[in-house]
Amino acid sequence: MAHIPRLYVPNPLASASEFELAEGQARYLIKVMRLSDGATVRAFNGKDGEWNCTLRSQGKRGFLAPATQTRPQENGSNLHLLFAPIKKARNDFIIEKATELGVAVISPVITDYTQNKRLRVDRMELLAIEAAEQTERLDLPKIYDEMSLTAALEAWPTDVPLFYCDEAGDTKPMINALEQYTNLSAGILIGPEGGFSPNERELLRSLDFVTPVTLGPRILRAETAVVSALTLWQSQVGDWQKQPYLPKN
Amino acid sequence: MAHIPRLYVPNPLASASEFELAEGQARYLIKVMRLSDGATVRAFNGKDGEWNCTLRSQGKRGFLAPATQTRPQENGSNLHLLFAPIKKARNDFIIEKATELGVAVISPVITDYTQNKRLRVDRMELLAIEAAEQTERLDLPKIYDEMSLTAALEAWPTDVPLFYCDEAGDTKPMINALEQYTNLSAGILIGPEGGFSPNERELLRSLDFVTPVTLGPRILRAETAVVSALTLWQSQVGDWQKQPYLPKN
Repeated sequence: MAHIPRLYVPNPLASASEFELAEGQARYLIKVMRLSDGATVRAFNGKDGEWNCTLRSQGKRGFLAPATQTRPQENGSNLHLLFAPIKKARNDFIIEKATELGVAVISPVITDYTQNKRLRVDRMELLAIEAAEQTERLDLPKIYDEMSLTAALEAWPTDVPLFYCDEAGDTKPMINALEQYTNLSAGILIGPEGGFSPNERELLRSLDFVTPVTLGPRILRAETAVVSALTLWQSQVGDWQKQPYLPKN
Repeated sequence: MAHIPRLYVPNPLASASEFELAEGQARYLIKVMRLSDGATVRAFNGKDGEWNCTLRSQGKRGFLAPATQTRPQENGSNLHLLFAPIKKARNDFIIEKATELGVAVISPVITDYTQNKRLRVDRMELLAIEAAEQTERLDLPKIYDEMSLTAALEAWPTDVPLFYCDEAGDTKPMINALEQYTNLSAGILIGPEGGFSPNERELLRSLDFVTPVTLGPRILRAETAVVSALTLWQSQVGDWQKQPYLPKN
């Protein structure tokens, strides 16, 4: 299967506006993919849709000249993921999957039972770029620095519903809870291994914009809960009524 | 938070039937967890529910004596996952997540675009045991040796619906397709990176028991599609109406 490489670039994409690629991207296209001058590369920047571009190399340097727009810019749902950081490989997985599943904003939140409090936004951004490139997304999620759960709840806009997955039960399955919602803005909060502390659960349940939900009888790992909750939201409220986008090769 | 260790064992679980633990499990409880004689350990075997057991050690050897049954045996949905093997870490992830999400049977299937054809069932079984232990599951999924997609389809019971996620689109979102089903037996088939070949799609679409479905506009990685498809099935047809099971510590 032919496969046209697809890159996120920070540059404006418009006809007759050639730009230079970052060193790593130039090396990838010229040395790793062994593309020659004149090869087609797809590029998106989160603003100007997706473009077929023409590659030009000059020694180690690489340049892209946008030729034709292949897709106009589309903005996804205004879905905000708040997650308590866990172990490194599983955090990486959360960033990758949240990007694939179309989240607009990712906020790490520190909860009472959070073990891992060291996170690097630059590293998370690289993972999100890679996931956006391979999933045919047209934009990147915004990734915020970590903050405490209390601060995140205080800053939350009260007209936006926030769903949190409560392993302690005593509430509705998420698929049923979502039946009442059509608001295209929403937040989903996933706790760490061990769930939320009793104080946190009390706080969360006291807030009008918060809806506790369950994800079945088994206790899911945090990263599984992220994918499951985002899947249910996108299927019932978000953009999963749309057909898959397949590039024309 | 106190946490009682939970182990899968192959032995019968009944009052007054002490048994010896496998070497690795004994070492884990006695050396790693540093449990003393008389400590409580939870055990399940897929047949007799879950039991609180009493640990006894003898040098490096460990023994468990089942004391009280904490949960009766329950059998989950009869959900069968067929997946095309991908890269090692992502295969591991599929086994772990399918187990967490309550799949009864896992079959690797070799498709036209399958790159990785080397799989070790014993390794997959260890991953499934670990996931079942941590997810409060009461049984293990059965894991079959790999077979060709054609052979798997020929052997499929024609009264059991089989859903496959078709990146080529031209069909219904999975959440809508599931609305017609209440059959607690089902199969879910996930292809490799690159999806199914034109011949495979033609074969799949010619079979009465097969329903193609989509998972939104973005192209998901295979392991993401596994979690998303299983989540939707469990939420709409399977056991996600049940509350989470929380052990009493």
